[in-house]
Amino acid sequence: MIHSHPVRVYYEDTDLAGIVYYANYLKFIERGRSEWIAVLGVDQMEVRARLGVVFAVRRVEADYLRPARFGDDLVVTTRLAAVTGARILLEQDVLRGAELLFAAQVTLVCLGDEGAAARVPAEIRQKMSAGLHQAAVFPGADVRLDTSLDADVLAFPLKHR
Amino acid sequence: MIHSHPVRVYYEDTDLAGIVYYANYLKFIERGRSEWIAVLGVDQMEVRARLGVVFAVRRVEADYLRPARFGDDLVVTTRLAAVTGARILLEQDVLRGAELLFAAQVTLVCLGDEGAAARVPAEIRQKMSAGLHQAAVFPGADVRLDTSLDADVLAFPLKHR
Amino acid sequence: MIHSHPVRVYYEDTDLAGIVYYANYLKFIERGRSEWIAVLGVDQMEVRARLGVVFAVRRVEADYLRPARFGDDLVVTTRLAAVTGARILLEQDVLRGAELLFAAQVTLVCLGDEGAAARVPAEIRQKMSAGLHQAAVFPGADVRLDTSLDADVLAFPLKHR
Amino acid sequence: MIHSHPVRVYYEDTDLAGIVYYANYLKFIERGRSEWIAVLGVDQMEVRARLGVVFAVRRVEADYLRPARFGDDLVVTTRLAAVTGARILLEQDVLRGAELLFAAQVTLVCLGDEGAAARVPAEIRQKMSAGLHQAAVFPGADVRLDTSLDADVLAFPLKHR
Repeated sequence: MIHSHPVRVYYEDTDLAGIVYYANYLKFIERGRSEWIAVLGVDQMEVRARLGVVFAVRRVEADYLRPARFGDDLVVTTRLAAVTGARILLEQDVLRGAELLFAAQVTLVCLGDEGAAARVPAEIRQKMSAGLHQAAVFPGADVRLDTSLDADVLAFPLKHR
Repeated sequence: MIHSHPVRVYYEDTDLAGIVYYANYLKFIERGRSEWIAVLGVDQMEVRARLGVVFAVRRVEADYLRPARFGDDLVVTTRLAAVTGARILLEQDVLRGAELLFAAQVTLVCLGDEGAAARVPAEIRQKMSAGLHQAAVFPGADVRLDTSLDADVLAFPLKHR
Repeated sequence: MIHSHPVRVYYEDTDLAGIVYYANYLKFIERGRSEWIAVLGVDQMEVRARLGVVFAVRRVEADYLRPARFGDDLVVTTRLAAVTGARILLEQDVLRGAELLFAAQVTLVCLGDEGAAARVPAEIRQKMSAGLHQAAVFPGADVRLDTSLDADVLAFPLKHR
Repeated sequence: MIHSHPVRVYYEDTDLAGIVYYANYLKFIERGRSEWIAVLGVDQMEVRARLGVVFAVRRVEADYLRPARFGDDLVVTTRLAAVTGARILLEQDVLRGAELLFAAQVTLVCLGDEGAAARVPAEIRQKMSAGLHQAAVFPGADVRLDTSLDADVLAFPLKHR
């Protein structure tokens, strides 16, 4: 499954170069992640209260390919690449139509009450995994799909490519 | 007492018009308030833990007079105008040298555990009042000083001018 | 006419108090203004290029009534209150359902090439005025409508109430 | 040379998790870059006007190691790792005392008038290179210094490690 979330560029997003300020792409993809996880049926606040875990960004690799501008209608795509132990690897892009403007790999880590890494709870793995397998069934929808993930995604070691 | 806090303008602060985005002046003056209250010896986090109160912005009146630009060295000034009941009225300006760029009146309200308005704790009133009377002793330092505040500032009804 | 624009609250909007950071309401209402002016058929970039004018925020009066929180679905409403000379007065609210969270009066000023105040171009006055009269025809839609604006809104002196 | 720039954490920087929002570290390191380049004697606005080039972020690799919190006094360090062709590779960290909170590798690209990649102008290479060689002379100052850069840094192909 590739989740899509629309974002329009407003004044607040731009800088004096007339383009979207580079930090703001991280806001855009965080909006995309929030919508993606909600679509999976995960309520972050409820998970924190009931399961005692939160998800934090551990690493971001981001390529800035083309600038976005005021008034642009963008789409943030979010695709789960792997879930392993305490980590979740996402691929998130920002597009303007067919143009790829920004591409990121985001590693989330599941944290328990004390802030220590904690295994991703089974129910969340299942919800995420369901979305992942759905993608595997329709690989044509995602040209970047790594088919090696099909076999045993949950045990797949997280690697930053 | 007029508290001064320096702010330099970075890319993050600007928008495509090449000037500081209007919402960011509220960030600048919030930095000024945080520094001002620290100078008075008030630790916001400690106050929340020990006295169970927080301060929230209730109202802002802001005039945008001249634009600030990338690289500008600005000064945020903060002056207590009145403390009354649950409210604190501040006058906060942003200047570039002698040029006044932005002028705001900010009303803070003291909130208790349940989010209801609560009387400003006596120890905080005293710390703020000490700073206020200090200003009254040297009125030449602040041409906008309202001398009617000298007599009984803590009972002075908060008015938005 | 009252223009409505939906806003969802994301992590980026919150602060450590667990609520929307006060400066971010100015971002929300700026999004509302950008959408409102687009609905009126005004392209800000095209206007700048062809007519040589831009609109800048000159004054904001903002009341913070109730906090918004992560995940809230908000609505920004924008209503033109007056156009006079170089100035445009808007009333903008942020609501969560029927709850009014934030209410602002925003004064825009039309600026010419040199940054000096310039009369709002006739074509823009007409587009805005059309929207305003539309509101006057259906006053039931806006309980705050000031009927004194009906007669001669374009000559109505701008006053900050 | 390792350039250091102090940053204090304010409300605007935090989110509802009570820590600095992840996108804001990119603001912190951009402030550090702006100060670093100014220390080298490069005026970004002047360079744009006179040489017709700007620097844009092309890639960021960022590790979030420990959270920063309200009131923290942080230091942003900036170290030039390589200049090659149109690219500049920087290593930028955010520390709280001796604690490393955030570590990034940032690739800048030099862009000409049309937005196409352009060779970094010689005078800027020299200013940056002077700073770089200074680091090489005192390698003890930077435990991460890559000595392979000494020989011919300006021809060294940029690699993302």
